[in-house]
Amino acid sequence: MPIKVLAFDGDDTLWHNESRFNVTQGELRELVRGHVPDADVDSHLFAVEMRNLSLYGYGVKAFTLSMLETAIELTDGRIPAADLQVILGWGKRMLTAPTELLDGVEEALRDASARYSLLLITKGDLFDQESKLARSGLGDLFKGVEILSDKTIDSYRSVLRRRDIKPGEFVMVGNSLRSDIVPVVALGARAVHVPYHVTWHHEHVPEDSLPREGWHRLDTIAGLSRLLGSIDRD
Amino acid sequence: MPIKVLAFDGDDTLWHNESRFNVTQGELRELVRGHVPDADVDSHLFAVEMRNLSLYGYGVKAFTLSMLETAIELTDGRIPAADLQVILGWGKRMLTAPTELLDGVEEALRDASARYSLLLITKGDLFDQESKLARSGLGDLFKGVEILSDKTIDSYRSVLRRRDIKPGEFVMVGNSLRSDIVPVVALGARAVHVPYHVTWHHEHVPEDSLPREGWHRLDTIAGLSRLLGSIDRD
Repeated sequence: MPIKVLAFDGDDTLWHNESRFNVTQGELRELVRGHVPDADVDSHLFAVEMRNLSLYGYGVKAFTLSMLETAIELTDGRIPAADLQVILGWGKRMLTAPTELLDGVEEALRDASARYSLLLITKGDLFDQESKLARSGLGDLFKGVEILSDKTIDSYRSVLRRRDIKPGEFVMVGNSLRSDIVPVVALGARAVHVPYHVTWHHEHVPEDSLPREGWHRLDTIAGLSRLLGSIDRD
Repeated sequence: MPIKVLAFDGDDTLWHNESRFNVTQGELRELVRGHVPDADVDSHLFAVEMRNLSLYGYGVKAFTLSMLETAIELTDGRIPAADLQVILGWGKRMLTAPTELLDGVEEALRDASARYSLLLITKGDLFDQESKLARSGLGDLFKGVEILSDKTIDSYRSVLRRRDIKPGEFVMVGNSLRSDIVPVVALGARAVHVPYHVTWHHEHVPEDSLPREGWHRLDTIAGLSRLLGSIDRD
């Protein structure tokens, strides 16, 4: 069945994201260690984020709240409010930073939009993601935008149903095996994995639990056009 | 033109919301005044919320971050981290509180769902709103759910276009003149205003700037069925 709809993840597929979280996390590490030199900031932050995931969901606001909680807990409440104000400022900086596209994205999207209907399917904070898309300047290339609170088989299924797309006509492109590849292949659609150089621990999937067929891996999004052409000829 | 699609706002139309923000804001007032007895917490918080609106959008996470910022600023950074941890806890309490339906909502929705296609059109935080709808037990009555980052003429227009709904077939029911009535009437659709007993200052609209036609006001949602029947007979 020929591909009709090509969907892209946003964060770390079209634009840099995780690397910014990592930079801020590094700053948090330094700040907390100024008070508690041997604090294991990274593990504690990850534990707090996981504990809060069902309450806060994904995104910068959730991350900022979890950073504040981590800093207070690790210092047993001894951290001064002025330092917490600095953390609030990091969150705002992340929310206002320009959307920085990955190499080759603009060309790949312009090329693909001439041949397929493009969708953006991303998870996270609605307000933040809409703002990032607007600042990217790429909004007009997409026929539709779906911002999901999480990317599961069910949430992909309802997107396809609502938009009347058959799984065989649908290809998802993204950097996360857990969010962009595994649930899509489970629905009988196809997926293209384009790894990003850093992956949030929560998104890791053991290689031996991956589906054996139905997806491809590319080193860079620049190879997308050629790959899709060869899939369509199969 | 007969009504086909009846859309409801969520917060303070179907379930209590603003009153919970008010309760928490009262707690913040007490907490901050423990450090700065004459602090004008309410005005400062409102100013911080307005300053942050374009960054954070609406919702509990945004409110929590703005409460923290307010508390730090009003105490010149003298508030102890343990108090800020308490504020973090208030945010979590708001996110986990059961969805408390307004009087008459369940009956009004069951009745309306037999005659019209129901949509939920709400703004705020995606994750939080999906969770509230799930906890309300009313999800199955709605044919679709639209969570918007803001409710403007453009955002309503794109919902109607995407779902192939003519303005003349569409009625919006909500508690906010600014978000649920004015933009909908501007599109040529109709609206029903059901006021809630408290309105966030940001949502206030001067009565003399309201449209003269195209909308109705009800004291309670229990009168909805009769009102819609009389509109349909016009």
